[in-house]
Amino acid sequence: MKAARYYGKNDVRVEEIEEPTTRPGTVKIAPAFNGICGSDLHLYHDGPMPPAPTDTTAHPISGETLPVVFGHEFSGVVEEVGEGVTGIAVGDHVAVEPLMVCGVCHACKANKYNLCEKMGFIGISGLGGGLSEHIVVEERWVHKVGEMPLDQAALLEPLAVSLHAVRHAGADAAAGKTAVVGGAGPIGLLAAAVLRAYGLKTIVSEVSPERRAKAQETGVADVVVDPSTEDLAAVVRAETGGAMADFAFDAAGVGVVLDQLFDSLGAGGRLEVIALHTRPYELDVTGKLTMQDRVLGSAIGYANDHAEAIRLVNEGLVNLAPFITSKITVDSIVKDGYEKLLHDRSEVKILVSMS
Amino acid sequence: MKAARYYGKNDVRVEEIEEPTTRPGTVKIAPAFNGICGSDLHLYHDGPMPPAPTDTTAHPISGETLPVVFGHEFSGVVEEVGEGVTGIAVGDHVAVEPLMVCGVCHACKANKYNLCEKMGFIGISGLGGGLSEHIVVEERWVHKVGEMPLDQAALLEPLAVSLHAVRHAGADAAAGKTAVVGGAGPIGLLAAAVLRAYGLKTIVSEVSPERRAKAQETGVADVVVDPSTEDLAAVVRAETGGAMADFAFDAAGVGVVLDQLFDSLGAGGRLEVIALHTRPYELDVTGKLTMQDRVLGSAIGYANDHAEAIRLVNEGLVNLAPFITSKITVDSIVKDGYEKLLHDRSEVKILVSMS
Repeated sequence: MKAARYYGKNDVRVEEIEEPTTRPGTVKIAPAFNGICGSDLHLYHDGPMPPAPTDTTAHPISGETLPVVFGHEFSGVVEEVGEGVTGIAVGDHVAVEPLMVCGVCHACKANKYNLCEKMGFIGISGLGGGLSEHIVVEERWVHKVGEMPLDQAALLEPLAVSLHAVRHAGADAAAGKTAVVGGAGPIGLLAAAVLRAYGLKTIVSEVSPERRAKAQETGVADVVVDPSTEDLAAVVRAETGGAMADFAFDAAGVGVVLDQLFDSLGAGGRLEVIALHTRPYELDVTGKLTMQDRVLGSAIGYANDHAEAIRLVNEGLVNLAPFITSKITVDSIVKDGYEKLLHDRSEVKILVSMS
Repeated sequence: MKAARYYGKNDVRVEEIEEPTTRPGTVKIAPAFNGICGSDLHLYHDGPMPPAPTDTTAHPISGETLPVVFGHEFSGVVEEVGEGVTGIAVGDHVAVEPLMVCGVCHACKANKYNLCEKMGFIGISGLGGGLSEHIVVEERWVHKVGEMPLDQAALLEPLAVSLHAVRHAGADAAAGKTAVVGGAGPIGLLAAAVLRAYGLKTIVSEVSPERRAKAQETGVADVVVDPSTEDLAAVVRAETGGAMADFAFDAAGVGVVLDQLFDSLGAGGRLEVIALHTRPYELDVTGKLTMQDRVLGSAIGYANDHAEAIRLVNEGLVNLAPFITSKITVDSIVKDGYEKLLHDRSEVKILVSMS
């Protein structure tokens, strides 16, 4: 079968590999659409880093070294089910929660499996990927999406990331409150979409004009701010009648955005970090947290979030369609995918069509 | 009447001042015991800083400049009630929640009055204090303590501080979980007491041998650790069967303790800062928070906490008696109070007897 495999820095090859075989407890899926993620870009442009294996070091769960089939944000149609599979049937439209976990560490036992000590991703750490004609996945990770269009279903994975952060912050039970989102890349935009679905007012702060336009076009922002020319805190003050925001979400991953978000946050507010920070943040614990009864939280990935993500979309509370900005074929994935996303800030989610 | 007044750095004078008069809505109290707090020490040894006024700058709520009557941790007996006071009667034993708030800012309106923009303390910012023979206080701040001994009732104020932090962290609904407390000064010890009252296992980490002894004598620690000679994280690992702590409380206010507490905290854990930090903390957001779904919170003072603090003591869930290490008279407050607390680490709470 045809598959795109990751060999390392600047090296993704579309080639013929052996088709995987359905085993007991697994489901064979024909991927329909596969989204390109920031992690894919990093791996492509910067080379392998965990949870990807290397040429010589295998991932502890998959046991695979490079190359691995690429692609972890994908939807598809069930082709075959293995012995003992009862919840999924041939023909079902599904999305995959692309994880591999050990099942025995303390986090796994506590059902916080996103924090598994050996955590890996299908499509990064091995066990196949969405950029192939067929993949075999354990039933546990396969979620039926009902009538949801399969292109939108490929966005359930990043939606689950944003949803997990919103739930971790407790903003899923905060209708009528105000949230500021710093950074309008895919995760920031989807966080804003989830926040609006839960009834919050959203103020999106973003320096890129293309991304600000997206925040407006997609309808996820009640207010859009350019923090390089506007005073974000002053806008938030005006929008909240002086009370300031109840929640802030850092989807940028830089210290200056944390500063801006703290300045926009009210008494008792919660700042949640969704982005990865490559540098430490100089935190004024007393000024930023203590004197305001505030909380700084952060979470990674998702666990037990896909069902709710699917509900939000299928009940019309989140509309994923406007986030799909391009559809390409797997043969042009480097030029129209990895290269394009680096430079074109008007792109939100590029989908690779696999069917 | 006799009162101890704060004039500034190294200057507290016991002198005769005019007795205050009961007004409508207020209660006149004869203070019984007044605890000496870390804030009093700072003000005495380092000079005035907000929320204390100065010689020339009045506190915005009290309108007073120095000198002010000192003492904000106090209990007493009601001597007189003003017109319209219905919840308090002459002879009631009471503790005072020693606050002054504006009532109109966003925090006050949200009933988060500990975050009032103009926040002041009775006994620091003006409006009298516990170190006097009489004080007149608005009914709102006067709490009946029932049969509680009046010496213990003077500790309700610091108990409310620790309780507020425990509640802010959500540890008041976490029976069976494990909490590490870093620092065994009065606030750390009282936090441990509250945590045990709510059914948590407590591990207290403290470098001072005298304070470690206190943590053991007062019965608030299930396990006591000296982090200068023992590996706190290893102890926590052993005590939790590898799961690590669910909660950690920083009652020390230094970065190295935050590091130790993060190392002791499990997946999804909450670190709550109770102490003030004078230096910024270099936070590895991704490593310490994101990759572990963790939360760092902090809160100041108390709001709506005194009733629960009184319940914990009167129902026998918290025993305040062992925290009272000395009782002195107001005439020797400098030598036996402010000077002694600076040097003697076996002291937890020194009470000034006012009756």
